[in-house]
Amino acid sequence: MTTIMSPLESPWRAQKPFMSTGDGVDSYARNSHPQGDFMSRLIPTLFDVIDSLNLPDQGVISVADLGCSSGPNAIKNVDAIINRMKARFGRTEGPEFQAYFQDLPGTDFNTLFRLLDPDQKAETSPGGQVEDAAYFTAGVPGSFYGRLFPRASINFAMSTFALHWISKVPAAVVDKKSPAYNGGHTQLGCSSLATVDAYAEQSHRDLSSFLTARAVEMVSGGSMLLVFGLRGNYYPYRVGPTLEVQDKIWNDLVLEGIVDSELRDSHNNYVYYRTLNEVDKVLSNFTSLFKVQKRDVYPSPLSSSFFLYPASTAEEKAQRITSVMKGAVGNLIKAHFGAQNTNIFMQRYKQALIEGFTNKTLVEDLANARKHLVLVLCRI
Amino acid sequence: MTTIMSPLESPWRAQKPFMSTGDGVDSYARNSHPQGDFMSRLIPTLFDVIDSLNLPDQGVISVADLGCSSGPNAIKNVDAIINRMKARFGRTEGPEFQAYFQDLPGTDFNTLFRLLDPDQKAETSPGGQVEDAAYFTAGVPGSFYGRLFPRASINFAMSTFALHWISKVPAAVVDKKSPAYNGGHTQLGCSSLATVDAYAEQSHRDLSSFLTARAVEMVSGGSMLLVFGLRGNYYPYRVGPTLEVQDKIWNDLVLEGIVDSELRDSHNNYVYYRTLNEVDKVLSNFTSLFKVQKRDVYPSPLSSSFFLYPASTAEEKAQRITSVMKGAVGNLIKAHFGAQNTNIFMQRYKQALIEGFTNKTLVEDLANARKHLVLVLCRI
Repeated sequence: MTTIMSPLESPWRAQKPFMSTGDGVDSYARNSHPQGDFMSRLIPTLFDVIDSLNLPDQGVISVADLGCSSGPNAIKNVDAIINRMKARFGRTEGPEFQAYFQDLPGTDFNTLFRLLDPDQKAETSPGGQVEDAAYFTAGVPGSFYGRLFPRASINFAMSTFALHWISKVPAAVVDKKSPAYNGGHTQLGCSSLATVDAYAEQSHRDLSSFLTARAVEMVSGGSMLLVFGLRGNYYPYRVGPTLEVQDKIWNDLVLEGIVDSELRDSHNNYVYYRTLNEVDKVLSNFTSLFKVQKRDVYPSPLSSSFFLYPASTAEEKAQRITSVMKGAVGNLIKAHFGAQNTNIFMQRYKQALIEGFTNKTLVEDLANARKHLVLVLCRI
Repeated sequence: MTTIMSPLESPWRAQKPFMSTGDGVDSYARNSHPQGDFMSRLIPTLFDVIDSLNLPDQGVISVADLGCSSGPNAIKNVDAIINRMKARFGRTEGPEFQAYFQDLPGTDFNTLFRLLDPDQKAETSPGGQVEDAAYFTAGVPGSFYGRLFPRASINFAMSTFALHWISKVPAAVVDKKSPAYNGGHTQLGCSSLATVDAYAEQSHRDLSSFLTARAVEMVSGGSMLLVFGLRGNYYPYRVGPTLEVQDKIWNDLVLEGIVDSELRDSHNNYVYYRTLNEVDKVLSNFTSLFKVQKRDVYPSPLSSSFFLYPASTAEEKAQRITSVMKGAVGNLIKAHFGAQNTNIFMQRYKQALIEGFTNKTLVEDLANARKHLVLVLCRI
């Protein structure tokens, strides 16, 4: 069960949340618009899946958002899903609905629950939509790489922008004697093949653990929508030039004596973008448990965000990427490097992006390097 | 359902938590020992109830702590309950267990979830107890005066030290033209009969709402353990002299020009201790839904705490009561009067208690004035 079957290493167990907490200017809650935009455009796909679900006429129908974080996106998605499901049933009779918002114990559930507060929902949705959206809510603290829910209790699950977070940095990657040692890098973009292999192996095991746990928890006939990062080529590991810029900045800070090289070398990424091939390899072990209903590759949310705002200036683009970065991983970076180094880093990062966009060294392959996979799996 | 059936007024809907947040020196988490001590002594009763439950051999068994707050007591209780239940079944087969920790949306769920973190549990329970205690956990934000869970989904529920919190201050009590207007008082100890009547009516409606919602949510044969405050006589409203002291202190602060009289007059208590008669009147409307299995009156947890530490000095007793007060209602007082006034009040409160204990004006009826009811109800 949740509390014993997932002996993961920190920071999955750490007190620090991954995503930036609260609803302040650097929070994930305020800086997850690209993820939200991406999901908005996925709504037709989502509704197709929901409409094809075999739902019971009575009892409870459970929807789980796995790795929900603390932003408003999770709530918007779940609202939309449950409203769509409810439309099939009469208003007075029929099943009841339960929404589970799940993430690591260190997640800012307080902010999430305040966003769930029915009074707030009432204020933002005049015209009785609150009544339509009514469902039971619960927050589930834990790791989705272990069990989270009782057997056969979930009718629909989704996990968006979360499954590219691996459960731990592979041991070899921080072992100075290993060929997979990633010293000198804070991203995988310039890492050795051995390092990327070590990440790939961890990522394979994690996705397998995720599917094993969900196979137990989902009802037969239930569906799961998964959205996570994807890259095109196995090696070199390339998921967009904006991330690779980071290695250079940290290296500059080490050379200038601002950041200790040991501190830089001991920082490693928790994000790993799989190739479609790697995903398929995992799925091939689950053919008796899950049927693949959809498997589409999309441009990444950040790229989509650029398509939505093509007229942005270099400064605006750089600001947006930096804000999204702060929201998504600012906490992790700060926990490792400290607030002062993180501030210096963020300033230089934004500046490097402005230069890159201005002299066109960054923008060209931005739309192509990083992809996202939209995967719909039905529990057989 | 939760999100629409309970249109309660703030602060049940407010962003401010009732109990003091975090795990600092004034937090509820650190200042709820008396409640914990009381529950420890209730364990035999609790285990009798658990042992008499008709539990299914498979599927999921759900336990809910209603109004759990963010302290360690909730987790200790639920651990004990589920371990007791699990002892009936084999280690590999049998049902799975789900624990719901429920409280208002403003509750500090972050602190609660960190206390739930399995690594922390592992550190504090050597010898493999973590494995024994394993169960699924979820936090449920909402008001227990409305629906919280799907129909017939809860096998065992408990609510300790929470049901004497009413859902709102009765309108008449803040209406200057009403005979029930409670201006001049911050507690009910010196209030008029009309004020107490207004509170009694609200409290009757709240307890009825609570039981109505639970009747839908509990499985037939399920049980519920309720512990909440009780007083002996209907009027004057007396629940122990330590609370009445507060009226005098606020009045002094008004007379000295430190606190505005309007601000004092607009502050009203959210706690109402029922008489046993009032509880029985509500229960009499639920005889077709709940069977009363136990109905025992105990000394209040604060009194018990004194029995446990009879050799305490006046200073120590005053400190303990002040700390417990800060943990339980410090946040509410601060939200109304501001941090500075609250500090002055707390200092004077402790001083008044020291004087009262030293000259024996306070200690004599302390063990008798405030009681607690332990009620076990079985869903028919």
